[in-house]
Formats: sequence, C-alpha cells, structure tokens
Amino acid sequence: MQAKPITIAVVGGTGAGKTTISNAILERVGSNRIAYIPHDAYYKNLDAVPFIQANVRNFDHPDALDTLLMIDHIKQLQQWQPASIPVYDFTNYRRTDETQLVQPQPIILIEGILLFVEAALRDLFDIKIFVDIDADIRFIRRLQRDIVERGRTIESVINQYLTTVRPMHLQFVEPSRRYADVIIPEGGYNQVAIAMVADRVRTMLTDMENGKTT
Amino acid sequence: MQAKPITIAVVGGTGAGKTTISNAILERVGSNRIAYIPHDAYYKNLDAVPFIQANVRNFDHPDALDTLLMIDHIKQLQQWQPASIPVYDFTNYRRTDETQLVQPQPIILIEGILLFVEAALRDLFDIKIFVDIDADIRFIRRLQRDIVERGRTIESVINQYLTTVRPMHLQFVEPSRRYADVIIPEGGYNQVAIAMVADRVRTMLTDMENGKTT
Repeated sequence: MQAKPITIAVVGGTGAGKTTISNAILERVGSNRIAYIPHDAYYKNLDAVPFIQANVRNFDHPDALDTLLMIDHIKQLQQWQPASIPVYDFTNYRRTDETQLVQPQPIILIEGILLFVEAALRDLFDIKIFVDIDADIRFIRRLQRDIVERGRTIESVINQYLTTVRPMHLQFVEPSRRYADVIIPEGGYNQVAIAMVADRVRTMLTDMENGKTT
Repeated sequence: MQAKPITIAVVGGTGAGKTTISNAILERVGSNRIAYIPHDAYYKNLDAVPFIQANVRNFDHPDALDTLLMIDHIKQLQQWQPASIPVYDFTNYRRTDETQLVQPQPIILIEGILLFVEAALRDLFDIKIFVDIDADIRFIRRLQRDIVERGRTIESVINQYLTTVRPMHLQFVEPSRRYADVIIPEGGYNQVAIAMVADRVRTMLTDMENGKTT
C-alpha cells in the first residue's frame, strides 16, 4: 500500500511572509513533487461574503471561504486522486466557471491566514507552520504591496486594515497560532528555519519512497 | 581545513521543556557526536550573585552567570579544542574546585534560560531555538519538579517564582525570544518540531562530513 501524501500548512497574518516560505519549500523540495493549494482560491461569491458593518464586506472572516470544499479536495489529494480547485476572480469577487486540475503529489502544501481556525481542516495537516512577524512590519508590507501591485490608495489600505484585517487577525489568526507545530519568526528572511522545514520534508519524502514510517 | 562545529542553543523559561528538547536532540542525533553545555554550570559563587531586594538573591538575572567564561569555552570547542567547564554545587551555591573536561564534537548543544540576552553569546549560535509554553503550565511544572525532586515547600516555590523567576522572565527571557530562528510550542511533547530540528542537524552533520557548506 502506498503511503499517504504529507500535508503541510503555512499560516500567518497578512504580510507575514507566508508566500515567501511556501516558495522556498517549493524551490528546495522541488515543485514537481508538491501539490500547492492557496485557501484564497476558495473565496465564496461576493453575495455570500459576510458583513462586519453595514456595507463593509469581511473577506478576512472564516465564513468568506468555502472551507468544506477545500477539505474535500485535500482528502482527494491525500487519497492520490486529482482535485479540481476553484479559480477565483479577484476583480469581480466571483468564483469563475473554470477550475484548475491539481494532480496528486507526495507533498500537499496549503497556504492561508485562517487554516488553523477550524478543527476539521486543521486535523488534515501533518506539519503546521505559523509564520510570525511584528504587526507594524506586517502592515508596512501590506501597504507597500497594495499600493505598488494593486494600485490602491493609502486611505483605502488603512481603512480596510482597521475595519476588517486587524480585527479578524486578533479574533481568528492570532489565537490560532496555538495549534502550530512550529513558529517561524521573520518569515521569508529566516534561512535557518526554512532549511529546517526543507530538510524535514526531504527526509519524510525519502522515508515515504522507502516505505518507512517516521 | 576542517569545518567549524555546529552550535545550537535551546532557550525557554523555567518549565518550558528545554531539557526534554535537548535530550531528544541528543538521542536522535547521537550523544557521542554532541558536546553538551548547560548555562547553569556557570553560576557565580553566592557572594557574586546580585540582589533583587535586600536579602533576596537573584539567580535568574544574567549577572548571576559567568557568561564571559562560557563564551571562551564555546569558542574553544568551535576551534576543536577541549574545554574545562565548571562544576557548580547547587547545595552550597559555590563553584567547586573540580571541572568537567568536555571534548570537542561536530555539534555543540547549549541550554539555558538567558542565552539570547547578550549579543556576544547569541552571535556564537548557528541555530537558535526558543521553547515556548503558556506561563501557567510552566509554573505548574516547576512546582511539581521542585516539590518532588528538590523537597521544597509550596510556599517557598511560589515565593521564589513571584520574587525573582517571574520578573526576570518578563524582563529578560520573554523579550529574547525575538532572536530565535525557530519557536517550538509545547516543548518536549512536540514531536513534529523535534523531528524537524533533528533532521536539520543530521543533514548539517552529513554536509560537514562531506566538506559541503550549507
């Protein structure tokens, strides 16, 4: 019997360096052996996203994401079955009719801010990583990214941060760090921690290929 | 030229599970390849230990430890020279006349609560691990250990905890977590994190033996 794929979750607040860590794992372990799924792909259509205040949609609340569908997909990949993951249109806030076929791989890598909030999702992960960095640095990174990459104004970034991002971080993301197996400070710039995760994943892969349980 | 030994520091508050983590590394990597040094061995004689209040000696303050001597010893081991580390008598609060000869090894493993406080010491470490666990659980573990292993009374444990252990933790140990490369929650019970550290150390050892720099 073939061993189950290894499922790794990378969690952290906005701007913490989740994607940098994920990319470092993809690079060091080999992207051809990794099925990568971002939680972001599972955003519900706009009319299903909850409000935090009248007229303010809350994209940082767990209810904005179709986590049940993601759980199904992870379970399919864990049984070496392909999964058709949704493709979300961030311009129109709608799930498109297209899907992306993700092939099963020995490593399943999941990324998102809210992955540790629900037990049914959390329990699927073999390695739970929380990327941690001071809140001011996280805000600065988000501000720079949203202005440069998304053409947003300073006022709109600050407003969204104070209205939904920050309260949801304090309510959901921050307390969920308790479930992490390992906390990585300074995110993507932390070469010592990245090497540690990569070595562990490579050893698990080798053990899996040799039919050994660790 | 032979590569320098790899120096690993394990830090965390009282009762966090430092020793359990250190033992797990010793076991999984092989104690015959590790030079182990506890910061505790470097306590100064009682008359050199600072006061926190009149009549209350403060064993949890960095000044209670002869860190300069420890730095010399780590540097000797890093140059593949043996080190004669002090033997401290915890009953009489004195450094004894004896020393323990520690032979150089490819891994140097250091354990203590205050290892990340001083830059001159901190800068010697290749992997900086901070073991983290909630303060109430740490206190409960210390209480149980001090009562069972050291025959202390509940009152004396609480008194020492409130007078020196806790204030020094808040002043020195907790802020020093900022320097960690990796934070391990739940200490010695965290098998996922222990496997990660062990795999990294084994890979570094193999690379060192093959003359490869990582």
